[in-house]
Amino acid sequence: MAEGSDDIQALITLMGRLPGLGPRSARRIVLHLIRKRSGQMTQLGQLLDRVASQSRECLECGNITDRDICAICSDPARNTGEICVVEDVADLWALERGNSFRGRYHVLGGTLSALDEIGPDDLGIPALVERIDQQKIREVILALNATVDGQTTAHYIADALHDIGVSVTGLAHGVPIGGELDYLDDGTISAALNARRKL
Amino acid sequence: MAEGSDDIQALITLMGRLPGLGPRSARRIVLHLIRKRSGQMTQLGQLLDRVASQSRECLECGNITDRDICAICSDPARNTGEICVVEDVADLWALERGNSFRGRYHVLGGTLSALDEIGPDDLGIPALVERIDQQKIREVILALNATVDGQTTAHYIADALHDIGVSVTGLAHGVPIGGELDYLDDGTISAALNARRKL
Repeated sequence: MAEGSDDIQALITLMGRLPGLGPRSARRIVLHLIRKRSGQMTQLGQLLDRVASQSRECLECGNITDRDICAICSDPARNTGEICVVEDVADLWALERGNSFRGRYHVLGGTLSALDEIGPDDLGIPALVERIDQQKIREVILALNATVDGQTTAHYIADALHDIGVSVTGLAHGVPIGGELDYLDDGTISAALNARRKL
Repeated sequence: MAEGSDDIQALITLMGRLPGLGPRSARRIVLHLIRKRSGQMTQLGQLLDRVASQSRECLECGNITDRDICAICSDPARNTGEICVVEDVADLWALERGNSFRGRYHVLGGTLSALDEIGPDDLGIPALVERIDQQKIREVILALNATVDGQTTAHYIADALHDIGVSVTGLAHGVPIGGELDYLDDGTISAALNARRKL
């Protein structure tokens, strides 16, 4: 038992399994926390307990929240005519940080995948189509990742929405702000060139 | 409030301040934990609470433990005639993983530093000298980092132990196991060459 006590060792093992961490970084973090245990460590433990017991999915959009309907879905200032479809809660958070979309969201929780046997029902796509139909949505923005699976899923959803008469859009492809052409892949450069605009 | 709830946001902020993590990796970890909240997250919260309340320094050597005297100091199978002096608990853990030292430790908790105004009393060096004298230690291994501050501290301690008549040694410098010469710095190569040994 090199690391102090069984609890410390268990803590390091558990931390080391988190995404992006390994045994070495976990040890470093745990030692750092033990040194500041009066403050940070107790606070972190309590927050983890609280978030673990209170977090759940928004019944409307699938966002993570601490109530039945999330803050975004229940915000009267948000545009109810637009729905932005994302793969994952992380993508929703990223769009919210961008601070330019004022509509509401729908979190799929994944992409269609023949390999992993994930079909439209697993992602709740029929329920999404029904939601869009019932709530009289004007525009659906498919903000899925620009990967093969993401784009396949986007096309599937666009097809499923075809008969409803809602406007379906996707994110623009192009040069990232601050990006240097020399470091961009060929696909992005072609996309940016094809979608060029008048200055 | 992009990230779900105030608690989630507080958790991400707190996580992002841990060494080696930033806002992006903290978000990723928190989302991962929320997805597995039934298991990992509650467990992690409870372990943090427990380690925070139980961890303290061994009264004998300064190692982190959950009792007054740590498992190493109270292990009757360990050699009581040797003390290995380390800067930090992380170094003690590293040596224990190496699994070849069977004596006991002394954790300084830092190095002498004129810039940061850390003197011998701040590191408890007089107490260390007294401990070595009283416990009839035969050998003191100064396993301090091979940095300027670490080596300065090692020399200071060696001087302070001069009159006690204890054997004072330091770790060997040389090529790390598995290391390639081409990637080593000049200092290490010279040290390894000077300390060459007969095969």
